[in-house]
Amino acid sequence: MRRTVVRLAWLAAACTAEELTTLWPYPASVHAGDGTHPICPGLRARLEPASRDLERALGRFRAHAFAHGPHGGECDARAIAELRVRVRNARAELQAGVDESYELKASCAAAGGGGGGGGGGCAIDVDAATQFGAFHALTTLAQLVSYDFASGAYALAGMPLLRVRDAPRFAHRELLVDSARHWLAPAALGALVDAMAMAKLNVLHWHLSDSTSFPLCLRAAPALCAAGAFSARERYARADVARLVAHAAQRGVRVLAELDVPGHAASWCRGYPRVCPAADCAEPLNPARADTFALLEALLDELLGAPAGGGASRGALLPERLLHLGGDEVDTRCWEASDEIIAWLRARGLSAADAYGRFVLRAHELAAARGAVVVGWDEIFEALGGTLPRSTIVQVWRPWSRASSLANVTAAGLRALSSPDPAWYLDSLDVNWTAAYAHEPCDGLSAAQCARVVGGGGAMWGERADGSDVEATVWPRLAAIAERLWSPRARSETARAEPRLRAFRCLLLARGVAAAPVGNARARDAPRAPGGCAEQ
Amino acid sequence: MRRTVVRLAWLAAACTAEELTTLWPYPASVHAGDGTHPICPGLRARLEPASRDLERALGRFRAHAFAHGPHGGECDARAIAELRVRVRNARAELQAGVDESYELKASCAAAGGGGGGGGGGCAIDVDAATQFGAFHALTTLAQLVSYDFASGAYALAGMPLLRVRDAPRFAHRELLVDSARHWLAPAALGALVDAMAMAKLNVLHWHLSDSTSFPLCLRAAPALCAAGAFSARERYARADVARLVAHAAQRGVRVLAELDVPGHAASWCRGYPRVCPAADCAEPLNPARADTFALLEALLDELLGAPAGGGASRGALLPERLLHLGGDEVDTRCWEASDEIIAWLRARGLSAADAYGRFVLRAHELAAARGAVVVGWDEIFEALGGTLPRSTIVQVWRPWSRASSLANVTAAGLRALSSPDPAWYLDSLDVNWTAAYAHEPCDGLSAAQCARVVGGGGAMWGERADGSDVEATVWPRLAAIAERLWSPRARSETARAEPRLRAFRCLLLARGVAAAPVGNARARDAPRAPGGCAEQ
Repeated sequence: MRRTVVRLAWLAAACTAEELTTLWPYPASVHAGDGTHPICPGLRARLEPASRDLERALGRFRAHAFAHGPHGGECDARAIAELRVRVRNARAELQAGVDESYELKASCAAAGGGGGGGGGGCAIDVDAATQFGAFHALTTLAQLVSYDFASGAYALAGMPLLRVRDAPRFAHRELLVDSARHWLAPAALGALVDAMAMAKLNVLHWHLSDSTSFPLCLRAAPALCAAGAFSARERYARADVARLVAHAAQRGVRVLAELDVPGHAASWCRGYPRVCPAADCAEPLNPARADTFALLEALLDELLGAPAGGGASRGALLPERLLHLGGDEVDTRCWEASDEIIAWLRARGLSAADAYGRFVLRAHELAAARGAVVVGWDEIFEALGGTLPRSTIVQVWRPWSRASSLANVTAAGLRALSSPDPAWYLDSLDVNWTAAYAHEPCDGLSAAQCARVVGGGGAMWGERADGSDVEATVWPRLAAIAERLWSPRARSETARAEPRLRAFRCLLLARGVAAAPVGNARARDAPRAPGGCAEQ
Repeated sequence: MRRTVVRLAWLAAACTAEELTTLWPYPASVHAGDGTHPICPGLRARLEPASRDLERALGRFRAHAFAHGPHGGECDARAIAELRVRVRNARAELQAGVDESYELKASCAAAGGGGGGGGGGCAIDVDAATQFGAFHALTTLAQLVSYDFASGAYALAGMPLLRVRDAPRFAHRELLVDSARHWLAPAALGALVDAMAMAKLNVLHWHLSDSTSFPLCLRAAPALCAAGAFSARERYARADVARLVAHAAQRGVRVLAELDVPGHAASWCRGYPRVCPAADCAEPLNPARADTFALLEALLDELLGAPAGGGASRGALLPERLLHLGGDEVDTRCWEASDEIIAWLRARGLSAADAYGRFVLRAHELAAARGAVVVGWDEIFEALGGTLPRSTIVQVWRPWSRASSLANVTAAGLRALSSPDPAWYLDSLDVNWTAAYAHEPCDGLSAAQCARVVGGGGAMWGERADGSDVEATVWPRLAAIAERLWSPRARSETARAEPRLRAFRCLLLARGVAAAPVGNARARDAPRAPGGCAEQ
C-alpha cells in the first residue's frame, strides 16, 4: 500500500513545474513538481552545527514562512515536519567572495530503505558551504511556503520533489545608500538591509559623507560630525555603526563604507578648515597640506585599524576588507584658485590633473597599508589607467565614458563593479524595472573580462530621497537588479520575469516593505487606483 | 555645602523654559527649567505594580530614549539613575474614556529630610491613573532625552525641576486606515500603530471592507474573503487580527473595526450574491432579504461575541466595545432597479430613503444586542436625526452639510467624532499640516455641545495609498491632528507649533517612521534638495 503511494508521488514528480512563480531572484537550478505538500509551522529544525546566527536566520524563516501563526490544531500527519540544515564550513568569514552556494531538497522518504525507525516522513534538507549559503536557502524556502486562509494550513510548493541548487552569478551585489544628502536613520538602514536579504543582495555600500554633510562621529576627528552633520541629531555614533554592521552580518550582508575623496568632501572643512583650499572654495580636499592626509589617516585608523595589523586590524570599526574611496567628479578649479596650491603644484611640476592622480594613489596606499582592498569610481581609471594597483576595484557608473568603460577596465586586468547611470541609478525615477533588468554587465565583454566583473548594484543617491521615500524609491526596481546579479545570464526575458516580480513585490509588501507599484510610469509614484498588489 | 547646591538648583528652576521644543503633542501643563541634567541609560526602574505591558513600555522607552546604546563607561555620579512608575488602577480596561492622565516629575532630592540612606540622588517619578497614562508619561519622557555624540552621554531637558501634568483634551484620537482599497499588511498596520503611540493617538479605526475588497477572513462567512479579497494573499486571518489588537493594546491603542453597510459593500456579493440587489448592481446591500441580516449577524457574532454575552462577549475577536457600521454615501438606485426590492418597499409603504433608515437602525440593534456602542458616518444623522439611539456616536466628515454638522449632532444630544473632509482627510494631498492644525472641532459649539465631541482623527482613505506610501501620506500631518486632539484648545498658533512639529518629524524619522517633509507643497512629496530633517 505504502509502495503505491510512493510510486504515485514519483509519477507526480514527473509533472515538473514550468517555473516556480514565487521565487525571486530565480535560482541557478530548480527541479520541482507542480504540486504542493503540507508543511508544519512547528517543524523541528536540526542545525549542524548550531550557531546563534543560524538560529536567528531560522527565526526569520519561521516568521516569514508562517506569518499567520501556527495552525489552530495539530499538523496533518503527512506534513513536512523536519528541516535539516547542514553547514560545511561554519567558520567562514563574511568577506568578498565567500561561498554563498546552497542546495535545498524537499522530499518524502521512499518506503523500504532502512525500514522501521520512524522513517517515511517528509523532510527538507539544506546543504550549504557556509552559513551565508544557508541563509539564502532559508530565504528561498520561505518564498515557497503559502498559507490557506480557509483551512489555516501551510503548504510548500514544488512538490512532491523539490531540488534547488543555487549560487550567485556575481559575488558582489550591492545597494548604495547615500546618508550625506539626507541622513538616514539606523532603523531605516536596518530595514533596507532586511529587504536586501530577501532579494539575496549582500553588500550595503554606505556613501557616508559628501559635500552636504558628514554624519559619522569618530573619536579620531570629532569635529567632522560636530560641524559637518546637518544637526545635532542627524549623526551616527560608533555604536550605531557597529550595530548596523552586526545586523547586516546576521543577514549575510556586508557593510562597505565609502569616504569620497578628494571631491564631494566640502563637509570635511566645516570641522577642519585646514584640509580645504578655501572656505568659499572648499573641494577637492587640499592636496598641498600634510593635514589633509593626517586627517585621512586618522579616519582610516579608526575605520580599518592601525597599519600592520594585518587584515581587519585590532580596534577596527568595520570588519569589511573593502573600502570605497570615491574619487568621482573632481573639479580642480578650487585648486587652481589657491595661491598655496598653485605654488605647491609648480614646485613639483604637476598639473592639477596630475595632482588628482597622486591624491588618489596616496589615499589608496594609506588604505592598503591598513589591509583594505580599495574601490573607487571609474574616474580613477580614466586618470590612472594601468598605473592603479592591481588589487583596485573600479566601480563603473558612466557606461558612456569610453575611457573608463567596463570593457576597458576589465581589459586592463582590473576588477570592476557595474553601477550604470541611469539604468541602475535608482534616483533616475523614469528608469523602470524593465530598463534595470535589461542591463547586462558582461555585454560586449569576453569571458575573461566578464570574470573580472565582481558584481555591481543599484545606487540610491539621496538628493531627493530621505527616510520618507527611500524604500519606495529602491523597491521594486532593486529587485530587478538583484536578479540580474544573482541568476544565470540566460534569464533575461522581461515578459517571463514580470509575474514573478509582481509576486515578489507583493511579498515585500506583506513583510512591511514599502515597495512601490511595478507598473508605475515613474518610480515611487502612488498606485493609480484601488486594486490588488500584483495588478499595480 | 550640600544646602547651597540645592538652593542654587532651585534658583535655576526659576529660569523656566519658555517651551520644551521637543514635546509633541504639547502636554496640558509643563513647569520646567531651561537646563539639562545627565540621565543614565541603565537607570533602575521601579514599576508599581509591575506588569508585562508596563515592562514592555519601559523597554520601548529605553530603546527610544537611549537609542545609541549605553555609555562607554560609568554614568556620571550626578546622573538621574532612578525611574519610579506608579499606576493607581492597574486593572483598568482599555476602552473608550479610560483615564489616560499622568504626572511626570524629575528632580534631585533636597538635602536634609531623612538624612543618610543613599538619599540625595536624582529621580524621575511617574504617577498615572492607569497603565495607559503611564505609557504616555514614558512617551513624553523619551522626547525629553537627548544624546551628546561627543561625550556619549544622555541628558534630560527641562531640568533642574521638571513637572508635567497631562491628560488628553479628547478621549478618542484616531487614525482611520482603509485596507479595502489597498490591502495593508499587518506589519504595515503595526508600524502605523507604533508611530500613533509616539503621537499619543489611541484609536486605530480600521475600515476593513468596502466595494473594492473584503480582506477579513471569518469562520462564520468564509466566502467573504475567499471571493472578496484582491488575492489569495491579501487577506487577514483571525490570528492576524488578534495579533494586531494585542500589539495595539500594548501601546494603549484600541482597534475599532468598521463594517461599512449598506453602501460600500459590493465586495460582500462576490461571496454571497444573495445579499445584493443584483450582480451588476451590487450595492447597497439588499434590505429585502433575511440573508442580508443573517450574514451581518454571523459577522457580528464573530467580531463581538454572541448576544447577551454582556460587554465583550465570550469568543469575541475584538475586545473593543465601539463598532463602526458606516452608513455613508448610500445611493439607492440599485434598490429602485430591483423588482424584488421595489415589491418589498411597496408592501411596506416605504421609500428607498425610509428603507435606508430602517437598515441602519436594524444593523445598530443587532450590534447593540451584542454589547456594541455603534459609530456611524454623519449620513445616518441626516437620515434619522433624533430617532437614532442615544448611545450612537456620529462621525462627521461633511462639515459643509448643514443637516449633519457637529453643531446639529451635538445639539441633538448625541456624541460626535470630527473627521472633516478635507482638513483631516489625509488623502487630500493639497491639505498641508497648517490646515489640519487649524481645524478646531468645537468652533461654534457651546460648552455642552463641545463636551459631546468625544474626539476625531485623520482619515487615510486608500484609493491612492498602499504599503508603499501610506506612512509618508499619514505623517507628519497626522501629528498636527494629534496635537489638536490632545493639547489644550488655546494651543493653536501655527507659527509657535512649527519648530516643534519639525522636531517631531525628525524624531519620527530617527525612529524609522517614513514621515514626509513638513514644508511640502503636497503631502508625501519628496524633499526638494539635500538638507537636514528640520529644514525640509
